[in-house]
Amino acid sequence: MKQPLTEEKVFKDPVHNYIHVQDTIIWRLINTKEFQRLRRIRQLGTSYLTFHGAEHSRFSHSLGVYEITRRIISQFERSGYKDWMPEESLLTLCAALLHDLGHGPFSHSIEEAFEMNHEDWTCRIILEDTEITAILRDVAEDFPGKVASVISKTYEHEIVVNLVSGPLDADRMDYLLRDAYYTGVNYGTIDIDRILRMLRPYHGRVVVKESGMHAIEDYLMSRYQMYWQVYFHPVTRSSEIILRQIFRRAKELYQSGYEFRFMIDPLGDLFRGEVTVEQYLLLDEAMIQTAFMQWTLEKDELLSDLCSRFIHRKLYKYVEMENLDSETIDEIRRSFAVAGLDADYDLEIDFPTDLPYDVFRPGQGFDSKQILLLDRHDKLREISEVSDIVRSISGIHRGRYHLYFPQDKLQKALPMLPSSIAEIFAK
Amino acid sequence: MKQPLTEEKVFKDPVHNYIHVQDTIIWRLINTKEFQRLRRIRQLGTSYLTFHGAEHSRFSHSLGVYEITRRIISQFERSGYKDWMPEESLLTLCAALLHDLGHGPFSHSIEEAFEMNHEDWTCRIILEDTEITAILRDVAEDFPGKVASVISKTYEHEIVVNLVSGPLDADRMDYLLRDAYYTGVNYGTIDIDRILRMLRPYHGRVVVKESGMHAIEDYLMSRYQMYWQVYFHPVTRSSEIILRQIFRRAKELYQSGYEFRFMIDPLGDLFRGEVTVEQYLLLDEAMIQTAFMQWTLEKDELLSDLCSRFIHRKLYKYVEMENLDSETIDEIRRSFAVAGLDADYDLEIDFPTDLPYDVFRPGQGFDSKQILLLDRHDKLREISEVSDIVRSISGIHRGRYHLYFPQDKLQKALPMLPSSIAEIFAK
Amino acid sequence: MKQPLTEEKVFKDPVHNYIHVQDTIIWRLINTKEFQRLRRIRQLGTSYLTFHGAEHSRFSHSLGVYEITRRIISQFERSGYKDWMPEESLLTLCAALLHDLGHGPFSHSIEEAFEMNHEDWTCRIILEDTEITAILRDVAEDFPGKVASVISKTYEHEIVVNLVSGPLDADRMDYLLRDAYYTGVNYGTIDIDRILRMLRPYHGRVVVKESGMHAIEDYLMSRYQMYWQVYFHPVTRSSEIILRQIFRRAKELYQSGYEFRFMIDPLGDLFRGEVTVEQYLLLDEAMIQTAFMQWTLEKDELLSDLCSRFIHRKLYKYVEMENLDSETIDEIRRSFAVAGLDADYDLEIDFPTDLPYDVFRPGQGFDSKQILLLDRHDKLREISEVSDIVRSISGIHRGRYHLYFPQDKLQKALPMLPSSIAEIFAK
Amino acid sequence: MKQPLTEEKVFKDPVHNYIHVQDTIIWRLINTKEFQRLRRIRQLGTSYLTFHGAEHSRFSHSLGVYEITRRIISQFERSGYKDWMPEESLLTLCAALLHDLGHGPFSHSIEEAFEMNHEDWTCRIILEDTEITAILRDVAEDFPGKVASVISKTYEHEIVVNLVSGPLDADRMDYLLRDAYYTGVNYGTIDIDRILRMLRPYHGRVVVKESGMHAIEDYLMSRYQMYWQVYFHPVTRSSEIILRQIFRRAKELYQSGYEFRFMIDPLGDLFRGEVTVEQYLLLDEAMIQTAFMQWTLEKDELLSDLCSRFIHRKLYKYVEMENLDSETIDEIRRSFAVAGLDADYDLEIDFPTDLPYDVFRPGQGFDSKQILLLDRHDKLREISEVSDIVRSISGIHRGRYHLYFPQDKLQKALPMLPSSIAEIFAK
Repeated sequence: MKQPLTEEKVFKDPVHNYIHVQDTIIWRLINTKEFQRLRRIRQLGTSYLTFHGAEHSRFSHSLGVYEITRRIISQFERSGYKDWMPEESLLTLCAALLHDLGHGPFSHSIEEAFEMNHEDWTCRIILEDTEITAILRDVAEDFPGKVASVISKTYEHEIVVNLVSGPLDADRMDYLLRDAYYTGVNYGTIDIDRILRMLRPYHGRVVVKESGMHAIEDYLMSRYQMYWQVYFHPVTRSSEIILRQIFRRAKELYQSGYEFRFMIDPLGDLFRGEVTVEQYLLLDEAMIQTAFMQWTLEKDELLSDLCSRFIHRKLYKYVEMENLDSETIDEIRRSFAVAGLDADYDLEIDFPTDLPYDVFRPGQGFDSKQILLLDRHDKLREISEVSDIVRSISGIHRGRYHLYFPQDKLQKALPMLPSSIAEIFAK
Repeated sequence: MKQPLTEEKVFKDPVHNYIHVQDTIIWRLINTKEFQRLRRIRQLGTSYLTFHGAEHSRFSHSLGVYEITRRIISQFERSGYKDWMPEESLLTLCAALLHDLGHGPFSHSIEEAFEMNHEDWTCRIILEDTEITAILRDVAEDFPGKVASVISKTYEHEIVVNLVSGPLDADRMDYLLRDAYYTGVNYGTIDIDRILRMLRPYHGRVVVKESGMHAIEDYLMSRYQMYWQVYFHPVTRSSEIILRQIFRRAKELYQSGYEFRFMIDPLGDLFRGEVTVEQYLLLDEAMIQTAFMQWTLEKDELLSDLCSRFIHRKLYKYVEMENLDSETIDEIRRSFAVAGLDADYDLEIDFPTDLPYDVFRPGQGFDSKQILLLDRHDKLREISEVSDIVRSISGIHRGRYHLYFPQDKLQKALPMLPSSIAEIFAK
Repeated sequence: MKQPLTEEKVFKDPVHNYIHVQDTIIWRLINTKEFQRLRRIRQLGTSYLTFHGAEHSRFSHSLGVYEITRRIISQFERSGYKDWMPEESLLTLCAALLHDLGHGPFSHSIEEAFEMNHEDWTCRIILEDTEITAILRDVAEDFPGKVASVISKTYEHEIVVNLVSGPLDADRMDYLLRDAYYTGVNYGTIDIDRILRMLRPYHGRVVVKESGMHAIEDYLMSRYQMYWQVYFHPVTRSSEIILRQIFRRAKELYQSGYEFRFMIDPLGDLFRGEVTVEQYLLLDEAMIQTAFMQWTLEKDELLSDLCSRFIHRKLYKYVEMENLDSETIDEIRRSFAVAGLDADYDLEIDFPTDLPYDVFRPGQGFDSKQILLLDRHDKLREISEVSDIVRSISGIHRGRYHLYFPQDKLQKALPMLPSSIAEIFAK
Repeated sequence: MKQPLTEEKVFKDPVHNYIHVQDTIIWRLINTKEFQRLRRIRQLGTSYLTFHGAEHSRFSHSLGVYEITRRIISQFERSGYKDWMPEESLLTLCAALLHDLGHGPFSHSIEEAFEMNHEDWTCRIILEDTEITAILRDVAEDFPGKVASVISKTYEHEIVVNLVSGPLDADRMDYLLRDAYYTGVNYGTIDIDRILRMLRPYHGRVVVKESGMHAIEDYLMSRYQMYWQVYFHPVTRSSEIILRQIFRRAKELYQSGYEFRFMIDPLGDLFRGEVTVEQYLLLDEAMIQTAFMQWTLEKDELLSDLCSRFIHRKLYKYVEMENLDSETIDEIRRSFAVAGLDADYDLEIDFPTDLPYDVFRPGQGFDSKQILLLDRHDKLREISEVSDIVRSISGIHRGRYHLYFPQDKLQKALPMLPSSIAEIFAK
């Protein structure tokens, strides 16, 4: 099924040094316009507003995920592990390469604003008659369907799904390394060579040789640190909030018949919730930024102000609170309204939370989210049973409330707020 | 004149680890919309189409140039060198930070296409009533003028100009390191700590302590390698050629009264050559990419084809030739026309050339482009007098002719070309 | 009190890039024979038998500790923190540089074998008329005494002691970074620039600005990983056990009047426990290795066998056990004796344990081993009160029993051991 | 012929990340006492006295050379190049691993002092009944002979010799990378992955695919810089001079019947030039340093002074001269004698010189020292024909005269030297 290139092609990559392409199908997939579109979508959305180095694209990340998967499979095959099926390797590589194909511009925010899901889009792009579909069909008529089923986690051979999206998948390994590299934050540096050497195909899933436990501990710790240092950084959250508010406001205006000074296809259809695959593929961050830039000149003040904030990076400020009950929240909103603030747009409450690792619960079977260690007697144990450190961190949620608001407006309204509320926002 | 921040601010930077901001003026300049615009302009233009990691912006680079300058000045002041004037430090830092402010989207190509110059735009943005101008005026009424004169190399104190644009300036040091980091090509790794330690202010210019000679040799070699490996990479040249062709075609169409399906302000004014500072600041790579994406749907086939090539990365192929005389060129163009190809758009000839280092010519005084070594007897010598390796490489131009063309069209026309011409393009 | 060099000297260092020496006293101390002796003592003892790259010396480490201390102090002075006393800087730097001066060859093992303490030797070398003493006296008559008191933690100004030996001291930061670099294990990579920027002198100790908490979490995790991955590696423990057995056997033989084929001054005095400072300074790892090499030819078979094992790296094997009660231990020893094994030399039981971090106990005051965070209201809190992750790991001891034994001898004795014992050692 | 291990073993290595051992023979060779002895011999001799980090051993380097060779061969076999003979791979790996086996302590100096050659010793250790010999004989009776013939460059298949000692051999690649890593000098960083990918077996030698030319240019430049920055560093040369003087003096004394306070086997035999393989294997740097340390107490003042200088790092100073004719040298020596200095020991003249690369001479065939590029038409060209930069540097020798002397003695004799001579040495 594989169609080896006469000569291997490489991409120079700062994270993996070289990305090696050995199969014609992979090479052709990379050169489709659907895959090239990922160059125009940043891997970390608005994080570049916090970490200026984080300007890398989903294109780079997708190549990285492919490369890690290639290395895992190549090690499985070199070692001749009997629980691996070599005939699944092209499928696995294609799914790894394409798994992020459906991401839209500023993905997480746009998904929230328009109730979409990038996984669905990935499957549609793979299945609905694109350049990608045509290439995959060259492998076999049912190959696009197989690739899509791996991505939607329904493919019959669990180990393929596990490699592409499991607790130790190539996706996570690449993004930890890549995001650490581009942000400059060194918490994400994991010993990927060691982790890869310790992976074993075993009874339909990927497990870890017990002696690799420390490398996994380190990986989970890196993941933990990257979440709190980078992914949940309050400045990034602030820019995401503004982004969602822009989408919300523009949709409200559109639905109310507001006449936009600037509109571009397919934004209208997006607001109406009727986007085809062909239209979706026109969406990229360049278009969103261009629309926002033009909207800084709109007559709707709220939209224009939000777009200025985003484009010129005049973000919302925030205060952090350890506790915040719903009564207090209501009280704040009420006071905001009284003081002439917009209780909808001038206050956003955020409670980031993350589960570093989901442990085994006694009495239940192993879960696809768990990392299993394989000891020398071929016995499987969930890692938190063996590692003190994983057990220690696995319950940590660590969320705190963050209140985001436009500092200039709030400053003016401050005298009109009750003192108990005012002091929350006073620096 | 300096206005220290109460607490130093830092930016996390993958290249310099941290960028340290200690002065209120610098902090305010960074937060202007004119400086934030640099986030939307890539440092290496289209190089990301060759090196997928090279997606970094001029914003990152400008912070880096500022940081290196800050370190040089801080070392000058700590060591109490008498040839440095501490009262010039804020001016030098501002000029270092702002020196790339006027770059447009895909700068080199747009400058060629529209006969503009980013240095002029930098000066205009500094002088013509922007947020930048206002902040600089807070230092002194004539301060914007001083900053602009450093950038246009007319400022009275040569050493300030020398730090911002000399043969060993902060600009070059940052871009070698940064472009190496983001492309993943490790030829650009220079020992910047050692170079910085070896710099001395001396009689109005920056010179190098003789014992730093090897670090300079290494720096010039890195520069040489980066030019030929990265900046002149034929795939990058190919994408720049297409970019220029798009601008050329769109301008032709505009001037001939063609009705664009999609047009956006201020592209029209750009085609007419009448852009104000305010309009110029609206230009960014997002807008250019968005226009190109929309133009893939234009009815003018040439424009639509060129835009598709650029957006979907179906670039021109190339052949390399050691020699190529003008007669042959004419013959190729003639044959192309005969064979139904467009002799203007379907063939571009490129001859990249670079002078790694411009040596001292006996009988002439020292030149501002030369690197001077200061020996322990306080005698100055131009580096190629002392370094065999610099002397050896300084005459190397190394250009070769590259012919770029659309492979699909050429393939079809091949039977109609004379065999002597055809075999040039046959793989 | 400081005597600045006319020109700063530097040492090229792989970990800190450059070590900067700015004071004549420091420069002269480095060039004494007592300090140069540290080149002949490895930083990690026998770890190079496990990690072949770990061949670095205490000389390198001592320069590194000096450099980190210099950077901390320089930041304190640049920021003008009022809780730091600039007049203590030379003292702090000297103590940092010299703190490991008294380490003997294979320090931990020799200390255990001969009941010595390197800190005492450091103080004696500083105080008892060496080249070091003479240079320190050039500062002030009581300066050697002051330096020694910082090292023995009795100096009146606690902050100086805290910088040289506290929970976040320059010693630990250098060894984590350096040992990670030389072993190649990347768990030790900490963000030292950030940690240094976050340190504050405060009421007689060094505390951490609250926003530096994550960098500290990462530092404690690195420390945890380095202990279990490197410092407690069972192969290293095995070599240390053999080393101690050699010392023990040689001492027994010496005391029993055995005539050594090879003996070298001052080993005899060491066995008698009567070593002067002058003699102690003759001791280095070259001498110990040379003695061991010669002793491989001794007629005492036990000594000769142990020395061969150490020199040719034929170490003891080990088995790991989660639990081991004293009854089982007694039973194993008895069975060993019955089977003709030497219950003293042919079995060593090791239980490595480490406390990653010692938390604050309510009701007690802050302890010198605790890391304190300083919030923006100038309130101090012990880090585990704030950090979930530190609290989670601080109780983890993680020890397991390791039984070390000579595989070849045990193999022969196996049939003579009761099966319950034999199966412990059967692979 | 290969005997694969049931499970691959790895060594953690800071330079190559992991060293992979897949064959039982390699594993057993590493564990011999002859190979373990390389742990006690530094890779860079006395360079650690200049670059304190350079304390790495020939053991580490030998593993590195093995690993690079393994990667080259593995790429050759994976790509199925027909000019490679897979049946030679174990031989090549063994020769790569063992090529430095015969190095003595402070190898270059001891070889010069006693007219020995490490390559001869390597062959003797391989052939004369050591643990190594026994293991190699397990492969085949004539296998030790084959390994020795590869090392002495007489093996029939030139490509095997070429891999182990050619202009682009694994030896050079490892030492550039490793010495750069341990000294901290970053000039040695070469893109080894790219170089390895570009190597091709071709008609009995290893050549480079033309598109790898820049990586080779960079490699040759790194080599050039490492020679002048590290290997020829005057402080290192100074320590080597003292080392040779010690050996010379000790031999003179020994031959004149001087009674040494301390002597150790086999130094006496070494002085007499009668050392067996068994004795040679006792020699290591620990023994040499121990002897020197003891000799600091000898009654022969010259020997004792030289040993003190070496052990306590009180090296000779030097002056550098661009030109120095033999008449001046004679005059200096005469004046030294007149002024009471020892014209033999108190002055050493050194003229380091190196040929960065030996180009092709027209009219001659290709030389085994040349690097050949293979173009896409399978034509070979010597690299300097194609690369301007290689041609430019290949004639550079760059030597300067260095005069080494004991500063204290010279200072006293200065008034007695003629002023023309005195001013050479006056600082």
